[in-house]
Amino acid sequence: MNDKYVIGVDYGTLSGRAALIRCRDGYQKASSVRKYRHGVIDEFLPNSTKKLPAAFALQHPQDYLDVLENTIPELLKITRVNKEDIIGLGIDFTSCTMLPVDENDVPLCLKPQWENHPHSYVKLWKHHGAQKQADLINHILDENGIANDPRFGGKISSELMIPKILETFQQDRELYEAAFAFTEAGDWLTKTLTGSAKRSCSMAGYKAWWIPEKGYPDNAFFKIIDSDFQNVTHDKLPGEICEIGQKIGNLNEKWANRLGLMPGIAIAASVIDSHAGVPGSGICRKDQMMMVLGTSSVMVALSEKPFADAGICGAFKGGIVPGYYALESGLAAVGDMLEWFTDNCVPVSYTKEAEQKGIRIHELLTQKASRLKPGQSGLLALDWWNGNKTPYVDGNLSGVILGLTLNTKPEEIYRALIESTAFGTRMILELFEKNNIHINEIIASGGIANKNPLFMQIYADVLGKSIKLADSEQTAALGSAIYASLAAGKCNGGYDSYEEAVSSMSRQKDFCYQPCMESKVLYDQLYRLYCSTGRQFHDSELNILHALRQITVSGQTDGNK
Amino acid sequence: MNDKYVIGVDYGTLSGRAALIRCRDGYQKASSVRKYRHGVIDEFLPNSTKKLPAAFALQHPQDYLDVLENTIPELLKITRVNKEDIIGLGIDFTSCTMLPVDENDVPLCLKPQWENHPHSYVKLWKHHGAQKQADLINHILDENGIANDPRFGGKISSELMIPKILETFQQDRELYEAAFAFTEAGDWLTKTLTGSAKRSCSMAGYKAWWIPEKGYPDNAFFKIIDSDFQNVTHDKLPGEICEIGQKIGNLNEKWANRLGLMPGIAIAASVIDSHAGVPGSGICRKDQMMMVLGTSSVMVALSEKPFADAGICGAFKGGIVPGYYALESGLAAVGDMLEWFTDNCVPVSYTKEAEQKGIRIHELLTQKASRLKPGQSGLLALDWWNGNKTPYVDGNLSGVILGLTLNTKPEEIYRALIESTAFGTRMILELFEKNNIHINEIIASGGIANKNPLFMQIYADVLGKSIKLADSEQTAALGSAIYASLAAGKCNGGYDSYEEAVSSMSRQKDFCYQPCMESKVLYDQLYRLYCSTGRQFHDSELNILHALRQITVSGQTDGNK
Repeated sequence: MNDKYVIGVDYGTLSGRAALIRCRDGYQKASSVRKYRHGVIDEFLPNSTKKLPAAFALQHPQDYLDVLENTIPELLKITRVNKEDIIGLGIDFTSCTMLPVDENDVPLCLKPQWENHPHSYVKLWKHHGAQKQADLINHILDENGIANDPRFGGKISSELMIPKILETFQQDRELYEAAFAFTEAGDWLTKTLTGSAKRSCSMAGYKAWWIPEKGYPDNAFFKIIDSDFQNVTHDKLPGEICEIGQKIGNLNEKWANRLGLMPGIAIAASVIDSHAGVPGSGICRKDQMMMVLGTSSVMVALSEKPFADAGICGAFKGGIVPGYYALESGLAAVGDMLEWFTDNCVPVSYTKEAEQKGIRIHELLTQKASRLKPGQSGLLALDWWNGNKTPYVDGNLSGVILGLTLNTKPEEIYRALIESTAFGTRMILELFEKNNIHINEIIASGGIANKNPLFMQIYADVLGKSIKLADSEQTAALGSAIYASLAAGKCNGGYDSYEEAVSSMSRQKDFCYQPCMESKVLYDQLYRLYCSTGRQFHDSELNILHALRQITVSGQTDGNK
Repeated sequence: MNDKYVIGVDYGTLSGRAALIRCRDGYQKASSVRKYRHGVIDEFLPNSTKKLPAAFALQHPQDYLDVLENTIPELLKITRVNKEDIIGLGIDFTSCTMLPVDENDVPLCLKPQWENHPHSYVKLWKHHGAQKQADLINHILDENGIANDPRFGGKISSELMIPKILETFQQDRELYEAAFAFTEAGDWLTKTLTGSAKRSCSMAGYKAWWIPEKGYPDNAFFKIIDSDFQNVTHDKLPGEICEIGQKIGNLNEKWANRLGLMPGIAIAASVIDSHAGVPGSGICRKDQMMMVLGTSSVMVALSEKPFADAGICGAFKGGIVPGYYALESGLAAVGDMLEWFTDNCVPVSYTKEAEQKGIRIHELLTQKASRLKPGQSGLLALDWWNGNKTPYVDGNLSGVILGLTLNTKPEEIYRALIESTAFGTRMILELFEKNNIHINEIIASGGIANKNPLFMQIYADVLGKSIKLADSEQTAALGSAIYASLAAGKCNGGYDSYEEAVSSMSRQKDFCYQPCMESKVLYDQLYRLYCSTGRQFHDSELNILHALRQITVSGQTDGNK
């Protein structure tokens, strides 16, 4: 029998990537990327000169279809794999990235009567137009004493599904009424490919407050928001919820022809992009943790018990790995913070030195920072440039640097920023520990993990744990392919069990970052200072960082008069 | 009668400047600058390859004589003023800048047997080799409960006269014994010019714990340090102390010939450089305050009562203005901090933009920062890049920036640094107020005051007071000239009273920075946050900034193993 293959398609913020993966061993035969033609729509709608509000981040759904129609035929062409040997396709997608569709699944923004309505477009995960709606819902959660319902986890974010729908409900009621459904972009794609109205539990669970035992919050809750909003889940979120690793449907004729695949092959339930990295990194035991280090970071650990609090999402079982609760957290800024630093704080002398050496500025700073010992600079930072997710769940916190002197060098600040994210990561790990989740093995992936050894060594030293790197540099696409192999099943050349699929298709590199105990001792001291400084800022009666944010806001209001 | 003239010579850290000033109205006829050939000696002694310790900052006394011999003849040459019309000369000098001399006033470093001894050179004000000696003395002050003696003002600095002598005593006893005297460089120059052994009360009072009522601390105090050190003031600091504004002596023949001046003209008691700015700015009322804004800042206010605490020096009467206590404080870093910022934290895009516009980077940042409103950036800094002088008297404090986000721009940080120094200045002013010194008029001088209107407006807004600029851009040289006119006296064409001299010779520009009340309201909020954040860092049981400094030190010690 020929080798069988699956396709994983990983939809990011600016582009989509398809990978053709061999089922037997997870070997990536080829991959193909396509950028979204419209990118992130945050200034003007297509063919419009009307400026969008600052918090808007929209996308165009045609871009997603273009990814499929371009990358998959290319994979077939370059690899010459027979289409008969491709047994399934899985999709991961940023989330909550959502759009309104009509009864035929046509996105409303593609219909002439709605094309000038901003809310008819895809709202990208990082669309922040629904902050007022999130504030309202948080107020209601507090007023009604239900904030600690694990579905809400203490406090909800404007990036979730319901705030985004409520934003449309409040700001464009006509469009809201006209929408047959609001759907995650990932679910929209699987429906398009299969005709199946099923939705993935991944996105419903992590982004729309759905849990297997109880479904969505009941109508009474939504009625408090607005009596006309009470049936929102029934009216606007139709479709059965499908477990992760299941087949959502079979590829229909139309799209089989378009993509050059066999009709009828298994299409897996879509999954949140960062979560696809869990199988893609080879995670299947509850002493393992996935850590994706990119612009922000994502950490996922498995648990036999639910946990949702302090910015950690882990309320429902089977959302990533069948049979386990998967606890997700991470930092709101990692690579973003280092980019901010190199964009704003690196002097021309360093830029020139990097040019002369023919290296990137990050490399130069890393080289210089490598020569420093832990604590040597006397600097400490709080990594809250984009707020704090865990443990304070507070977007109004901001970054802090302590210990600056006239001798402070750029590489010292750069290193302090890296260290601060390692300390933030350690706080999350200690919260896991407190909830009896004991991590022995961290498996890292993402751009920084593969590019920056100093960064990884600092993490190993601060966390006091060894860190392996995922073998694949495209863990999300590999993970989606693994879900596709499960959707196809053993009888078709795939797998029937998650553990078997992961252990066959996914692995780690041999190299491992080991903590240096001498550094760890110094970092233990700095970590205690990090925690107490953080508490000092967060808990003190006068929360200075909030007060500063407040002054900013009042200053800007004055400015707009 | 021809117009009469005086010469003021202002000795800075890297150069000396002489100005020829008309007695009648303070008009500066000409000025001339000469750089010190040896600059700051902080790596190697002249003709030596042996590396000096890191904290050393020495100078060569010949450089000071070269200033006189080059600048004064040049003044005469370019102005063609008759030497008969020059009635006096005054000197201001950095302090405590001190040197050991033999019984003929020859600096020991000029004698072959001592030229390889680092302690034989001039120790510049910012020589920090005596930190251990300062620590020892502070320990003794605490142990004996005398730290609050106004001469010591709570805590003493390594930059003062006695720690610097003690350093020599402990590290080069042979040289200590060989020294006929240790002398301030300013006093050494007046002795050289006149043969008079009198010392200025300015430097003795502010830098060597001398007060008119009691003289130096008594021998018993020095005996605690070391029994062989008990007679230090008697043995090594000979010479009567001369009041400020007095004539220390008459110019001798030898130097009259060298300089092209008339022998016998009045040489004024020397004065600390920044203090010379007090008459030079036109300060003669106790509701006025001098503020010199340079690398650091100096603030001087007049008082009828002594005050010395919390980093404010004001223990003895007549040290700057006859009849008044002069309270001195200031910030340990102002321009230095902005230089640090432009050297280390400004991105290449800004450097290029400044180049394209043909302006300095400070100008570009100031332009951009001018467009911001108070509080708009959400940033707050503690200006402790070089420790804190007032109120905490703590060199181990360090700088802090709060409120950083991914959107923070360099000009926002730049502005926050300026604001932080304004807040630090307001704390000092409020301490003055608490001690019944009510300032109605601030007179600013120094490079920043004349160059940066944004900086000055922020100060006016934060302090809530109007700020004038001294008319002279060389207030120290003018001040020295004013003291020279007092030393010469009315009968010779000078003045007999400080008030008359200052009101005739010194003035302010017409322009005045007025506080904008709208900004002040916002700055009042930020100032409260600045104070409470400062207290939080300083007073909390765990002083995080000290802890960081401690880790640095322990890390470096490890590094030296």
